Amino acid sequence: MIRDIIADYAKNVESELDILLGGKNDCCQKKIYESMRYSVDAGGKRLRPVIMLMFAKMFGLDSRHVMRFACALEMIHTYSLIHDDLPAMDNDDLRRGKPTNHKVFGEAMAILAGDGLLNFAAETVLEKGYNLPAERIIDAARELFNASGVSGMIGGQVIDIESEGKNVGIKELELLHRLKTGALIRAAGRIPAVLAAADREQLLAVTGYCENLGIAFQIQDDLLDVFGDSAELGKNIGSDEANGKVTYVTILGREGAEKLVDEYTDKAIACLEQFGNGALELTELARYLTKRRN
Amino acid sequence: MIRDIIADYAKNVESELDILLGGKNDCCQKKIYESMRYSVDAGGKRLRPVIMLMFAKMFGLDSRHVMRFACALEMIHTYSLIHDDLPAMDNDDLRRGKPTNHKVFGEAMAILAGDGLLNFAAETVLEKGYNLPAERIIDAARELFNASGVSGMIGGQVIDIESEGKNVGIKELELLHRLKTGALIRAAGRIPAVLAAADREQLLAVTGYCENLGIAFQIQDDLLDVFGDSAELGKNIGSDEANGKVTYVTILGREGAEKLVDEYTDKAIACLEQFGNGALELTELARYLTKRRN
Repeated sequence: MIRDIIADYAKNVESELDILLGGKNDCCQKKIYESMRYSVDAGGKRLRPVIMLMFAKMFGLDSRHVMRFACALEMIHTYSLIHDDLPAMDNDDLRRGKPTNHKVFGEAMAILAGDGLLNFAAETVLEKGYNLPAERIIDAARELFNASGVSGMIGGQVIDIESEGKNVGIKELELLHRLKTGALIRAAGRIPAVLAAADREQLLAVTGYCENLGIAFQIQDDLLDVFGDSAELGKNIGSDEANGKVTYVTILGREGAEKLVDEYTDKAIACLEQFGNGALELTELARYLTKRRN
Repeated sequence: MIRDIIADYAKNVESELDILLGGKNDCCQKKIYESMRYSVDAGGKRLRPVIMLMFAKMFGLDSRHVMRFACALEMIHTYSLIHDDLPAMDNDDLRRGKPTNHKVFGEAMAILAGDGLLNFAAETVLEKGYNLPAERIIDAARELFNASGVSGMIGGQVIDIESEGKNVGIKELELLHRLKTGALIRAAGRIPAVLAAADREQLLAVTGYCENLGIAFQIQDDLLDVFGDSAELGKNIGSDEANGKVTYVTILGREGAEKLVDEYTDKAIACLEQFGNGALELTELARYLTKRRN
């Protein structure tokens, strides 16, 4: 069952995150590690690391070589949520069914915990002990930080904040999501491809899968924010409407948005044709995500 | 004159920062680049990059090879100031004689500009085009992010926030500053040493210089906050007292603190003895800093 396979990958990532962020309790920075761990441990689907580990397997990479990148990606995703939830940003009290970081640790510590996670992501991928050429580590690390930076995720958050309450069209919406959520999902596929020294054609196929999956994922997010169950989601529904956000649902309606999820999912799967059975997990993951309820 | 030499190094760094952060005005993230540049352009002494470039010269490194690290270090220093000034942290309105970032761009953009600078520091050092072994780039980048992380600068900021209004002793004060300001100054010396493949003895000497200089620098900061001139400093004086902070001056008094500046400066200079005339600029820099007025 793909559900169990996903759960296994997620568990592996969580164990590694525990090791990386744990055992630091004895030092004088106990409180910030507690705050960083609080949000990392809060769960979530671990979608980005799961995608990364599936691609790593497809390319025949030793999972130990990508595990640090998988953890770094999850740290970056988590820091972005901590900062997005701050009063000056989306001002959210609840995330994954738990109080947001600043509600528990205060705003100052939440800002520092976010900074700490982004910084720790860099430390994690730069740590010694790879059995791969150093050039490839640098190339993969560059993929990661280009994806999370101003030309990627941070840029998407800027557009999101700037466009609140404005009447944006579907083109702007696509750009926003391609950066805000899409960039890290794209990196989740491209990093193992780079580490495995994939050729250009393979890299394009991986990128295509991730980009289409990313859009499908985001449309689904918009649908769940209107038609989802707040208990299953672990957050309040209707927040997009409350924040005056234009979404795929406000533009296309429920049926139009659902149809688009299927279309993008099909496109994503089609990109991996050249990998044959090697891409089975990734194909099933894409189908599985269309039925997700959180 | 050492003053002119410092100014020259600073100017080179500023030109490179302009190139790195400029020319991005055409993209959709115009506003965040504006906000990032605002704080980077706000000036300051560029002490960390200047130290780095002086060590690079001492080790006979081509300055182009360290310039990216010098710029990344200044980006990280700047992001830390932006986040430290936020209302949830020190709540400062003035920095280097200008309104702080969040006063001009709003809190949300200031948080993102800080995140953006930290992330861009990683992108900058990971960019292609070095003429040095990739292993050394990774080692130097690791020095950088270990210094700016939870075991370094961020950890120092945590201690600073946690100790406000508390009666800390000189040992805690030293730990705070060794992390908060000391770690990046230490990295400023160690990174060119690593890039030049310095031996262990050299690395220890460089580290010793930077650590002692860092403490002297911090004591001087405390002195200027009480006895400095707010126009020359570009910020209000007396802020430590207003924030209930224990400083070298509150513990040791003016004379005791001034004596300690000289002692640590002498110690710093003594560390570089083995480099002979090669360390002349760094020796003069240390002397020059004891007389600084901002």
